[in-house]
Amino acid sequence: MEFIDELRDAVGPALRVEPAEIDRVRTDRSGWTTPEVPLAVVRARSTEDVQAVLRLASAAGVPVVPRGAGTGLAGGAVGSAGSVVLDVSGMDRVLEVDEQDETAVVQPGVITDDLAAVLAPRGLWWPPDPASRAISTVGGNIATNAGGLLCAKYGVTRESVLGLQVVLADGALVRLGRRTVKGVTGYDLTALLIGSEGTLGVVVEATLKLRRTSADPVVTIGATFPDVRAAAAAAAAITASGLRCAALEILDAASCAAIDALVAAGEGPAGDLPTLAGRGAFLLVQTDGGASEREAASVLALIADVGGEGSVAQDPVTAAGLVALRRAAHPAYARLGEVLIEDVCVPRTALPAMFDAIDAISLRHGLPIPTVAHAGDGNLHPNIVIPASVPHAPGEIPDVVWAAGEELFRTAIALGGTLTGEHGVGVLKRRWIAEELGDDVMALSTRVKAAFDPLGILNPGKVF
Amino acid sequence: MEFIDELRDAVGPALRVEPAEIDRVRTDRSGWTTPEVPLAVVRARSTEDVQAVLRLASAAGVPVVPRGAGTGLAGGAVGSAGSVVLDVSGMDRVLEVDEQDETAVVQPGVITDDLAAVLAPRGLWWPPDPASRAISTVGGNIATNAGGLLCAKYGVTRESVLGLQVVLADGALVRLGRRTVKGVTGYDLTALLIGSEGTLGVVVEATLKLRRTSADPVVTIGATFPDVRAAAAAAAAITASGLRCAALEILDAASCAAIDALVAAGEGPAGDLPTLAGRGAFLLVQTDGGASEREAASVLALIADVGGEGSVAQDPVTAAGLVALRRAAHPAYARLGEVLIEDVCVPRTALPAMFDAIDAISLRHGLPIPTVAHAGDGNLHPNIVIPASVPHAPGEIPDVVWAAGEELFRTAIALGGTLTGEHGVGVLKRRWIAEELGDDVMALSTRVKAAFDPLGILNPGKVF
Repeated sequence: MEFIDELRDAVGPALRVEPAEIDRVRTDRSGWTTPEVPLAVVRARSTEDVQAVLRLASAAGVPVVPRGAGTGLAGGAVGSAGSVVLDVSGMDRVLEVDEQDETAVVQPGVITDDLAAVLAPRGLWWPPDPASRAISTVGGNIATNAGGLLCAKYGVTRESVLGLQVVLADGALVRLGRRTVKGVTGYDLTALLIGSEGTLGVVVEATLKLRRTSADPVVTIGATFPDVRAAAAAAAAITASGLRCAALEILDAASCAAIDALVAAGEGPAGDLPTLAGRGAFLLVQTDGGASEREAASVLALIADVGGEGSVAQDPVTAAGLVALRRAAHPAYARLGEVLIEDVCVPRTALPAMFDAIDAISLRHGLPIPTVAHAGDGNLHPNIVIPASVPHAPGEIPDVVWAAGEELFRTAIALGGTLTGEHGVGVLKRRWIAEELGDDVMALSTRVKAAFDPLGILNPGKVF
Repeated sequence: MEFIDELRDAVGPALRVEPAEIDRVRTDRSGWTTPEVPLAVVRARSTEDVQAVLRLASAAGVPVVPRGAGTGLAGGAVGSAGSVVLDVSGMDRVLEVDEQDETAVVQPGVITDDLAAVLAPRGLWWPPDPASRAISTVGGNIATNAGGLLCAKYGVTRESVLGLQVVLADGALVRLGRRTVKGVTGYDLTALLIGSEGTLGVVVEATLKLRRTSADPVVTIGATFPDVRAAAAAAAAITASGLRCAALEILDAASCAAIDALVAAGEGPAGDLPTLAGRGAFLLVQTDGGASEREAASVLALIADVGGEGSVAQDPVTAAGLVALRRAAHPAYARLGEVLIEDVCVPRTALPAMFDAIDAISLRHGLPIPTVAHAGDGNLHPNIVIPASVPHAPGEIPDVVWAAGEELFRTAIALGGTLTGEHGVGVLKRRWIAEELGDDVMALSTRVKAAFDPLGILNPGKVF
């Protein structure tokens, strides 16, 4: 029997081969569309579906591309030629919330914000906070080890996952990790799976480590600066003072201008918000926990020390508005043209040098690169705007953008940083990975991959 | 040329074969001594020494046992038959401290407390806090993913290591991880190495993530309870209230009695300390950060709610004395006989059930098992005392102790827990690991091991 018929026998109507469905999985939120054409999509409804797909694919040597909501920014879940795209976004149940042990057991397709909505009434929350949280899934957060706005204080996804159920390439179901907050029996295969972008196994269930919601007020501060170096200096001074802010976000001058245009178009948030037009930078700070108000006062003093103008939001609408200004960055960039969202991370002290390099690269290539940074952990998102003047087919990334991207990546690595802080390597950064890791680690990683997936059917052509 | 001669040519006087040195590495702090006899010890002075040993051992198929200060509690660094014990305790330099980026680069042999002494004047500290910190090394902390008193709030070793330089089994030197606090380029091999107990590679350098010392006061509370269930209920209530205490340590009645005897013998700490004689349990709590005093008041109220008697240390001597009471547990147990320190971890809500089970196991086997627990993360150390009435050769663990240990491990696993929270599997817990992990994960782990060490020369017979 043909592979595709076996697959239909096994998963029935979960198998989809219509062109619209095939096209849907050829792209993600990077804007890039692969020229390759996958064979089929399986919209898995259960662990058994996932096991069946992998068992058959292993037997037939057919590649399998695990996929959640498709909100990735590096092409990591884009269907490759002749592959079965294993879409687990329909496995979206919260199976268990344990309020006493502060754990939840979820399927991979749960949208991160939907999980938050389930947890909030119970006084619990899950720290990973990617900007995409309204549309991305817990499984996707795990696949990329997502970070976000809160991770300098509350850790990345790895720190909030205790255990995983994973289907291996041969269809075997294994349980990694545990339900306890601590444990060292055997290798930390849970951590190894987190951030592995679907190349080692398919997560079908995750045991998450939650936190209890604090009753203390969150204090929100907005500040503007004459230039981005001053904002970076303020962020550095805040960190150096020992304060751990919940959020510490820098937007550069180009971002301020873009958001100001959005506001001027009547699409901005409400509240008593600073004018961003003509500002060199905007800094969003949030303090939380038992000393949040005292910490906010220290933050304001440090902002003033370096010439910034900051103030504490005096009402909930303004506080929400300040956060919304930061979150408006991506819609604001989208008004400028097509955008490739980049994601380098450098040691915190190298933030000013990286901002300078971004300016220089922007000028050299004639491309606007408005940038936002999670300043608490040195993670910058330079957003390369593709102006209408640069012709390119839909879904294609022009050479000039790749040239600018390459300079960004190489500068980050030269500054002691990495080419991806939280989005992953996928397809789009694969050509630079060896420059960061070196040949020996590449070879070692390939052997680790083979230990999980000896036939190489899981997401081939991604990451390595 | 014979292997041993090649080794001498390569490392010179670092090679040691005298019987006293061989005997030194046949045991660790578990009290157990292997009947096996290693071939030689190399006291490595440099990365080059480590590479030379592994290159020659790979060529000759000779096993290599990495070892630091030898303070392990599971036999993980004990020399096996015919092996070269690679002692890196002499590689003990702090190579770099970056105050701005809050990172340190160290060799593996640095004693954890010595690192603290280097960092403290710079206003920095490294969170891992194993009870052995005065005698154990950073490399050993990494090899076991050490936890300690502070990890419920500040994380285990994994959360405080950014990157590693590792010599692989074939002598190749690889650099894993990075200097940034975030990054997802490639697999998280740093996390995989952490806790791998010398079976995947030899750590020769680590880039550590530091924290800045807080200027806020640490508040220390001591409390006594009629029984250990009440203490566990207090700890549960504290956690459920959302408080994150720096330390939350329970000592059971047997521990109280043992420490009281130590105090009565004039070996106890100073300060205005509670009497532990006849108490059902002692709870040590520390709050820190900007709201430490307010949090301490909440803790006291929660303690009183469940019938505990608690008070805040009013002076630094008393505060230090309360912590010293907790840290006196092991010297106190040692007065009762030889002790096997165990290390199970259960979901926090299972703490009372685990305490009950320990009591029952103690009664059934006629062995005192005083227990201390890191209550914030469900990690218990039941300490099996071997009474003088149970004859056994020095360095041997009697069968009755293994029988009691086995019941402890199986109970912990049945409660949803793990057989080791922070000490590792080593040799001593190897016979139970498959019960926790299952056959498929055992097989997968063996394949991962082979990806790093295809000849199986690194610490064979340990963990798996």
